[in-house]
Parts: sequence; C-alpha cells; structure tokens
Amino acid sequence: MPNFSDAEQLLPVIAQDATSGQVLMLAYMNQEAWQQTLASGEAVYFSRSRGKIWKKGEQSGNLQRVREIRIDCDADTILLKVEQVGGAACHEGYPSCFFRRWDNGDFQTDGERVFDPQQVYGKAQPGN
Amino acid sequence: MPNFSDAEQLLPVIAQDATSGQVLMLAYMNQEAWQQTLASGEAVYFSRSRGKIWKKGEQSGNLQRVREIRIDCDADTILLKVEQVGGAACHEGYPSCFFRRWDNGDFQTDGERVFDPQQVYGKAQPGN
Repeated sequence: MPNFSDAEQLLPVIAQDATSGQVLMLAYMNQEAWQQTLASGEAVYFSRSRGKIWKKGEQSGNLQRVREIRIDCDADTILLKVEQVGGAACHEGYPSCFFRRWDNGDFQTDGERVFDPQQVYGKAQPGN
Repeated sequence: MPNFSDAEQLLPVIAQDATSGQVLMLAYMNQEAWQQTLASGEAVYFSRSRGKIWKKGEQSGNLQRVREIRIDCDADTILLKVEQVGGAACHEGYPSCFFRRWDNGDFQTDGERVFDPQQVYGKAQPGN
C-alpha cells in the first residue's frame, strides 16, 4: 500500500502515457482517491485547489484509464501509466501539462494544443 | 521561473531518463537547489529527510546530467530529463525508484538491481 499516514495525507502521483512514455502531469491522491482509482480503473485524484476528490476528466471527458501502477522506494510517490482519453491531460488543452521547456533563461512553450480550453470548460470555470 | 513562493518552499521534481523515457524518481527542490542545478547542469535537490541541499550522486557517483528542463501549467512541478550516470537512480540499487508494480492487491518488485547498496553506501549510511 502507498504510505498514507492518515486519511488526509496527500501523496504525489505522476501520470505517464503508457504508450509514448510522455510524462503527462503531477497530481495528488489521498486514501479515498487511491481506493476509487483501484475500484474504477480510472485515475481519481484529490484536488488541492478545490479541496475535494476529483475524477480526472469528469468535466472534459478526458479520463485516464490506468494500465499500470507503480510505487517508489519510500512508498510515498505513485506512478500511474495511463491511456489518456482525448489525447490531452492538461486543462490548458495540451497533451502534457509540461508544455514549456527551459531555454535561454526562461520557459518557452513548445507543445501544441489538442483542444481549446474555452470550448471545453467555458470561460467561467477552468478545470479538468 | 518555477513558482517558489519563498526560499524555503519545496517543489516536486520528476526525473526522467532522457533516452528511455523511464521515470526514475521524484525529489524536491528549493530555490537554491534550482539555481545550483542550472549552474552545474547536474541535478541538485533538497533532501527533506536530511533538511539540506543534496547533490544527486554526491556519495554514489550516480550523478544526473540534465538534458532538458520542463515545467507544468501551474509552474509548481519541474520535469528533468536526465542522463543517469551509473544506470541507477535509486539508492536501493535499481535503475528507477519505481521498481515495484501493483499486482493482485499488493506491490511486487519487478526491477533488477544494478548495484548492491551495501557496497556503495556501506551499512551505516544509506543515501544517494
């Protein structure tokens, strides 16, 4: 089991594309999110900004189907290998949240958007 | 710049093998570690257990040469693509810290050790 010290503790979770190996995002799970992920086979996280359980793709439809679950030596970081439905993990419309690369002293966008966030979420409520 | 709110704040850092795409480990940086990583071209983290800056490989020789640096949409997670010197990122001797896979209700080791931790660190002082 992941090393959750109590029901509130959050552990970081790396989501990686199971096919390409691209790192898609980093999110967090509490015990409840972990249990829901196991039960559903789809990634469920805990949103720190919203303070609640968050099923990835619940709004956008861009679910993450879990293909493999790994844990690190300290049992305090989880690695999910996923099939990213819709081809985009990031709420900004990019395949990966890591769409900016360090170049000459600053981060530069080098990703290509798969969708327009305003089309998917509307202006008022960006989310995932 | 990564979104460090102050000198103490730690941000998670994913280290990924630049060639194979294997996720090697998750560690943390403060501003000082970030600056030292940029200056040296080799990964420098902040050890939460030891409470100090930690140059990856300072004891084992298994440095991480930084090939690419990415940041996520919220600028609060860093992704390093690295060349892992010695072929092992984990202080337990495995190429990746994620050497255990979820299988039938528990995590099972499926990684192969590259080195014997006792040979590298001795019995008294495990480290990286």
